[in-house]
Amino acid sequence: MTSQVYVLAFTAFILSVVFSPIYIRFSRSKQFGQQVRSDGPRRHFHKAGTPTMGGIVILFSLLISLFFGVEKTPFLILAVGITLTSAFLGFLDDYRKVVRRTSLGLKAREKLAGQFVFSVVFYLVLLYLGHSTVVDIPFSTLQIDFGLAYPLLIFLMIVAASNAVNLTDGIDGLAGGTSIIAFLAFLLLASMQGLQDMALFCGTMIGAIFGFLIFNLHPARVFMGDVGSLSLGAALAAAAILTKAEFYLAIIGGVFVLETLSVILQVISFQLTGKRILLMAPLHHHFEMKGWSEWQVVTGFWALGFVFAIMGLLDFPWPLR
Amino acid sequence: MTSQVYVLAFTAFILSVVFSPIYIRFSRSKQFGQQVRSDGPRRHFHKAGTPTMGGIVILFSLLISLFFGVEKTPFLILAVGITLTSAFLGFLDDYRKVVRRTSLGLKAREKLAGQFVFSVVFYLVLLYLGHSTVVDIPFSTLQIDFGLAYPLLIFLMIVAASNAVNLTDGIDGLAGGTSIIAFLAFLLLASMQGLQDMALFCGTMIGAIFGFLIFNLHPARVFMGDVGSLSLGAALAAAAILTKAEFYLAIIGGVFVLETLSVILQVISFQLTGKRILLMAPLHHHFEMKGWSEWQVVTGFWALGFVFAIMGLLDFPWPLR
Repeated sequence: MTSQVYVLAFTAFILSVVFSPIYIRFSRSKQFGQQVRSDGPRRHFHKAGTPTMGGIVILFSLLISLFFGVEKTPFLILAVGITLTSAFLGFLDDYRKVVRRTSLGLKAREKLAGQFVFSVVFYLVLLYLGHSTVVDIPFSTLQIDFGLAYPLLIFLMIVAASNAVNLTDGIDGLAGGTSIIAFLAFLLLASMQGLQDMALFCGTMIGAIFGFLIFNLHPARVFMGDVGSLSLGAALAAAAILTKAEFYLAIIGGVFVLETLSVILQVISFQLTGKRILLMAPLHHHFEMKGWSEWQVVTGFWALGFVFAIMGLLDFPWPLR
Repeated sequence: MTSQVYVLAFTAFILSVVFSPIYIRFSRSKQFGQQVRSDGPRRHFHKAGTPTMGGIVILFSLLISLFFGVEKTPFLILAVGITLTSAFLGFLDDYRKVVRRTSLGLKAREKLAGQFVFSVVFYLVLLYLGHSTVVDIPFSTLQIDFGLAYPLLIFLMIVAASNAVNLTDGIDGLAGGTSIIAFLAFLLLASMQGLQDMALFCGTMIGAIFGFLIFNLHPARVFMGDVGSLSLGAALAAAAILTKAEFYLAIIGGVFVLETLSVILQVISFQLTGKRILLMAPLHHHFEMKGWSEWQVVTGFWALGFVFAIMGLLDFPWPLR
């Protein structure tokens, strides 16, 4: 039933294309503008005031599309639930920034607590559904049974993925495009395992992000905000957990991992040696500082995302082997 | 064992990167230049004299990479055999063009006879191996048993794919890039079915084409010629047959199908109504005539190729379902 995937993806796409300009107009009228980090690249300063929280449009399109004519399976409810929980945390974050007009949002502790609670709920439902806690290790034939530590793995995946997509969201179209590519890989993983509900979730997500991306490409007329990046990251984590591709998330989302590593290594290097290894972290800013145009960085990272997605799919331990 | 795929793909890539400039120099010294169709777009005229038959480099890199340390399974021998047979026909074609210095090559009848003979041999080997003649129909749950007509299907697939890639090979990097994308899809299809030999074949092919592509991108320093396009098309057909994705070839290679349809429809339309539906066929020239740059056409068609590849993979009737 791949036809339903196309129908829902197209529906979500159209909804996003229709809602985005409406949201942009609304947001401009309310002056919900983005704050831009004062230590970022100069050429990003003009972006101050661009409407943010566009992730709301993505989620709205996703929910409406999935609401009609789709069987509400436990997996679908879990995936949507985890996405909305993270969206809510991101929304609070964005809202504080927009209201307080600073670039600093929700406290890290508060976010983590919220995500931890949901991870435990997520685990309990999976336990009830008989979901395996055995996890495949990429590039090997090893398997690890996480057992009672599985909720911790869920928690770490959600936190890591949310923050990684959040860090990646620093150039027009980067986080959105890279997310679409990762969701494409999970769409295939779900489809090939016969997980129709997860295929629908991924397909609809792709459509929703695509419609938004049209307005988010350089020069962006709207940003996704934390409500977007945190929820997309959590949705990717959910897709990885439910398609039993837990550790493959790190390969399929390799661009997000590189972005995160670049920040970590930059900090460690500076604290240990006093030297920065990159001109600016995260990685995408490094290439910008080297003179690449925003468009070159974005398309280059997309291409890299495709390579990572294919590597992940290629190594996935298909039961057929 | 995906690691072997990476090793071979990388080996073939390096070989192509090394051999291409050597071949270009050799070809220039022998003045093996491309003839350019006099009724084609004006801006292609300057391409006359560019070395052609670069497909030889791809095949050479493929063969050397596959020769060492790879188990010579029947599937691998069949795939390589069909590729080389078509390459030979393409080579004769190219050679006549280069020697006779016209843009017209081997007679269609001669090519077809050669491909038919090989198709029957191919079928007999498959029969011996117990290969199923039941074929899945895309976008449905239908299956057709071709039975004794299976060799005819093989023949039609090889002829159609060879000619379709040949028609597509009219803009720098188009046939090569689109072939890489299609081989990626078959690489995944093979890998997921545990067909390690076909995964190696596709992976090595991708590496070999990639290395060549570097010199074939706009402005191309070498063309693949019929030896390249006919063999790549036949190799794609072989990959589709051996991964039991016969009809999915038409989806995964959707760009090639569109290019072929554009020529057919252009001819039919002109003969029936006296009007041309495209500014120029094949389709890529139409977009060029509309003012797109060669680079825009190529990247646009690649993107389309990705969409087709994903559609094919998504609809493939995985035994897991």
